[in-house]
Amino acid sequence: MPRSNAPDLPGLLSRLNGRMREDDHWGDVAAYIPQLAHVDPHQFGIAVVTADGTCHVAGDSEVPFSVQSITKVFTLAIALGRSGDQLWQRVGREPSGRAFNSIVQLEQEQGRPRNPFINAGAIVTTDEVLGHRPPREALAEIVQFVRAAAGTDDIHINDAVAASETAFGHRNFALAHFLASFDNLKNAPELTLGTYFHHCALEMSVRQLAMAGRFLVDAPGLPRLVSAGRIRRLNALMLTCGHYDGSGDFAYRVGLPGKSGVGGGILAIVPGQASIAVWSPGLNRYGNSHKGTEALAILARQMGWSIF
Amino acid sequence: MPRSNAPDLPGLLSRLNGRMREDDHWGDVAAYIPQLAHVDPHQFGIAVVTADGTCHVAGDSEVPFSVQSITKVFTLAIALGRSGDQLWQRVGREPSGRAFNSIVQLEQEQGRPRNPFINAGAIVTTDEVLGHRPPREALAEIVQFVRAAAGTDDIHINDAVAASETAFGHRNFALAHFLASFDNLKNAPELTLGTYFHHCALEMSVRQLAMAGRFLVDAPGLPRLVSAGRIRRLNALMLTCGHYDGSGDFAYRVGLPGKSGVGGGILAIVPGQASIAVWSPGLNRYGNSHKGTEALAILARQMGWSIF
Amino acid sequence: MPRSNAPDLPGLLSRLNGRMREDDHWGDVAAYIPQLAHVDPHQFGIAVVTADGTCHVAGDSEVPFSVQSITKVFTLAIALGRSGDQLWQRVGREPSGRAFNSIVQLEQEQGRPRNPFINAGAIVTTDEVLGHRPPREALAEIVQFVRAAAGTDDIHINDAVAASETAFGHRNFALAHFLASFDNLKNAPELTLGTYFHHCALEMSVRQLAMAGRFLVDAPGLPRLVSAGRIRRLNALMLTCGHYDGSGDFAYRVGLPGKSGVGGGILAIVPGQASIAVWSPGLNRYGNSHKGTEALAILARQMGWSIF
Amino acid sequence: MPRSNAPDLPGLLSRLNGRMREDDHWGDVAAYIPQLAHVDPHQFGIAVVTADGTCHVAGDSEVPFSVQSITKVFTLAIALGRSGDQLWQRVGREPSGRAFNSIVQLEQEQGRPRNPFINAGAIVTTDEVLGHRPPREALAEIVQFVRAAAGTDDIHINDAVAASETAFGHRNFALAHFLASFDNLKNAPELTLGTYFHHCALEMSVRQLAMAGRFLVDAPGLPRLVSAGRIRRLNALMLTCGHYDGSGDFAYRVGLPGKSGVGGGILAIVPGQASIAVWSPGLNRYGNSHKGTEALAILARQMGWSIF
Repeated sequence: MPRSNAPDLPGLLSRLNGRMREDDHWGDVAAYIPQLAHVDPHQFGIAVVTADGTCHVAGDSEVPFSVQSITKVFTLAIALGRSGDQLWQRVGREPSGRAFNSIVQLEQEQGRPRNPFINAGAIVTTDEVLGHRPPREALAEIVQFVRAAAGTDDIHINDAVAASETAFGHRNFALAHFLASFDNLKNAPELTLGTYFHHCALEMSVRQLAMAGRFLVDAPGLPRLVSAGRIRRLNALMLTCGHYDGSGDFAYRVGLPGKSGVGGGILAIVPGQASIAVWSPGLNRYGNSHKGTEALAILARQMGWSIF
Repeated sequence: MPRSNAPDLPGLLSRLNGRMREDDHWGDVAAYIPQLAHVDPHQFGIAVVTADGTCHVAGDSEVPFSVQSITKVFTLAIALGRSGDQLWQRVGREPSGRAFNSIVQLEQEQGRPRNPFINAGAIVTTDEVLGHRPPREALAEIVQFVRAAAGTDDIHINDAVAASETAFGHRNFALAHFLASFDNLKNAPELTLGTYFHHCALEMSVRQLAMAGRFLVDAPGLPRLVSAGRIRRLNALMLTCGHYDGSGDFAYRVGLPGKSGVGGGILAIVPGQASIAVWSPGLNRYGNSHKGTEALAILARQMGWSIF
Repeated sequence: MPRSNAPDLPGLLSRLNGRMREDDHWGDVAAYIPQLAHVDPHQFGIAVVTADGTCHVAGDSEVPFSVQSITKVFTLAIALGRSGDQLWQRVGREPSGRAFNSIVQLEQEQGRPRNPFINAGAIVTTDEVLGHRPPREALAEIVQFVRAAAGTDDIHINDAVAASETAFGHRNFALAHFLASFDNLKNAPELTLGTYFHHCALEMSVRQLAMAGRFLVDAPGLPRLVSAGRIRRLNALMLTCGHYDGSGDFAYRVGLPGKSGVGGGILAIVPGQASIAVWSPGLNRYGNSHKGTEALAILARQMGWSIF
Repeated sequence: MPRSNAPDLPGLLSRLNGRMREDDHWGDVAAYIPQLAHVDPHQFGIAVVTADGTCHVAGDSEVPFSVQSITKVFTLAIALGRSGDQLWQRVGREPSGRAFNSIVQLEQEQGRPRNPFINAGAIVTTDEVLGHRPPREALAEIVQFVRAAAGTDDIHINDAVAASETAFGHRNFALAHFLASFDNLKNAPELTLGTYFHHCALEMSVRQLAMAGRFLVDAPGLPRLVSAGRIRRLNALMLTCGHYDGSGDFAYRVGLPGKSGVGGGILAIVPGQASIAVWSPGLNRYGNSHKGTEALAILARQMGWSIF
């Protein structure tokens, strides 16, 4: 049961990058907004920060991409910091067994989303972070948190993406109004959604994202932004709910807590050992990065990193 | 990140046993068959087998109880041994987001159960283990597997419980016929269900169950019945699906792969470190042992055993 | 608004028969049991009994066919005669918005079927007719009722069809066990289903069926088996629920209370004026007779028979 | 089977009014907007226009009330006049088996509402009437149609009610955005909803509403606004879908095509014979007027007016 680091992580990442580029099946990029639809699918990048703080990269490691739902992890951490366990009165923590944007379950559960990683749940979490402040302030806090976690100020919101999400986001507007109809929004749907669309439009490279993920590793040499108990719970939620209706498959094949975004990024955590970011824009049938998932499955196996 | 064993596990178990008995809220026992309804709820037992093979116990550690759904782990291991990944054509591996005996999802998913740990999925798994043999032979294999895992022949099926399940098991008959209507049963519903009800009626003490769980720990000193890769996958499934609609809550609070049974038992695995069995017949609102879950949450925290 | 009989009904039926045979699209016959799958789809028959008791026929009017779900009307009449409005505690009277054999709704509605014409509801109705008698006695009552309504003893159950339904009826077994799990069956599922499968296997020609439908017309010259108030309610149920998930379409296009069967028959009632039976084995996408529905739409329009 | 008018309709209405006021159970008024919540529930009015054009009234027959969903009948008539059967590509005509504002079904049916009388369907119908005009023009057409049907210009929209619906209408905003996410809205959700909320805020007395309903009777002495074929189809839709999830119950008990509104009004049609409007603000569990439904059941029985 080799759970220590393998000797040659840089070489392994380099070979993984080569292997990913050999296979011609890249998956389809998300097409619901032009900014994502026009991304070249033939890209792959990976970055791993180990417990000693070293960052190893391979492939397109410096290209900023739209992190999308991956920010749900950061806003959840902030929301828990602001509200503690009271947050769970507004949102559950069970896998949904449904697509990321399903509204059916929300009706059955009387307006309390199943977990903070499906869209409805992330809208509630954003609403909690928003509180009664102007959206600008809440967004500043979120961006500041992510920059602090990543150790760089060079992380920005792509306003064109946020505007496009707003223009095409009817399903999210439906979810927000539906939440409001159950009295589970503190702010007007437009305000909360504006904040939501903007933090989803954050852009990072895999290097930046792996650095930002360090606060979830819980290793002595890495920055600590939240308590050890909270880290474990965030990781548990990522494991059970981080890949929508493909969470079980990801746990089965990769065996790591992770959160995917429709931009093709995945953040995965090896508790106590490493923060991994991978990116390839083409998606599999669950809406998660096709090559990103493949690469993580191989890496976890070769490094003996599965938590199981 | 203290992931090593704490020095005084026996003392910790003893104090845990005392603490569990102090609180007067024991939960309600399952009432759908007389054999379970008449169990005294004021019982609690725990057993832990560590990587060196030592078994520590506290409380009602030698009382046999009906393991019920916990056998789904053993039948899944056997089914994967017989059929390999072909099994996944008949059953999925995603959390269900539903109660253990829901038939709704089965209609939506065209007769392919979401995972092997909800009843419909376990019926399919049993059907796969049954193959085209007489039920008696399949049951002998299951009992033999459990006895080998536990290292004792003193494990038996309670025929009265099995008979009672048959008499009151209309919901399971509905599920089996429903599966048959989608051509997802190889045997007549009565045959598969007969086998299913009998292996669910196995009785073990927490000592026996913790011993039987050793094959999922993957430690050099413990017996190995399946490959390391399969162990990780069984644990992943237990983490995401092992507690029905309370799986997310269990992962969040306990942070260990586990499988519960309506008889009040829970088997939990600390990968590489320990096999834990706990039993208290009163159930929480998810249908999982109330004090069993509490005890595991405390133990995992005190031992630093969360996988996250 | 011509609501009186048109002068030349025989001529109209003859032309309708010719027109139906001109079009080559006959639809597909039900394929779930061999006895129905082997019926020649190129058949069409129609019979109309008017308020004066005259029976006009055209096409294959003397060929016995499996009436299937159409018997649900007769068993409902008998059940209401036995139990009165108490029946509605066990079954609702709302359109289902679902396929005839859906089990989803049954879970949502806690085992009380939406109406007596979907399979689950008809199983409950049959169970009510069965009471605590041997199935043979209940079946004798049902057959006797149909024969009395039709004014002929030459109506029989096809035992081979009933046996085949039993052999292939996993979905209905699932429904029955599901009802039992909610305590909404008085008899063992096998007993109730045996009775259900047998009365669905009744065979009649359209002439016999139109004659049997006379008791729902409420005209002075026709036999009266139930009260005028009950007639109106049976017709209301046929209008809103008689064609499963195609009931709205049938009401919109035909405008008459009616009940279809998967054997390709339809019984339609013109209150105060006529009983109509039509048969053509090919089905449309709702599982109702394709040419039967077409013919009724034309006939109702030409005769000014829509109740709207 | 007395289907002719009873001799003394005025006396019957007067006695009905008295009987309704004897019983102290008035039901609860709709509470989701202040304008409806503050209506005194102790009111009852009824008006009947017979085939000869005479209007008989009793009770609070001249009090204007918010007709709400009853306008869905008029907008449907207008939409069919504008678009013909093409409308049915955007909305179905089957009973929903669900509450009036359910969003679940809309997800299952991929954004095509089940029928034009549930909220989602009426929003689509409104969108069709709106076309690409300014909402003001579409509203003018709707109001003009209703005034022409009623034969009076003294029918107005209550702007305060419309404003309140807009302020509290999160569920309807959710439905509209959901429709838009399936590309089933031609206009921005705000525009279509603005039009929808305004026509629902029309106010009429039962006298005016019964007069407005004349165009659905299809009698020689009454105004004709749409073809006889379309009348029958509108009536069929009212019968199967006009009372949401209580449509089957209304058909069973009253036996007439009808459309209810949450303001406590019901419009019912006796084909060829009469247009009936009844109003009492207290609602039953389906959201339809409690005393209105009771009164219609008695009136239909005493007059022999059931269409069944």
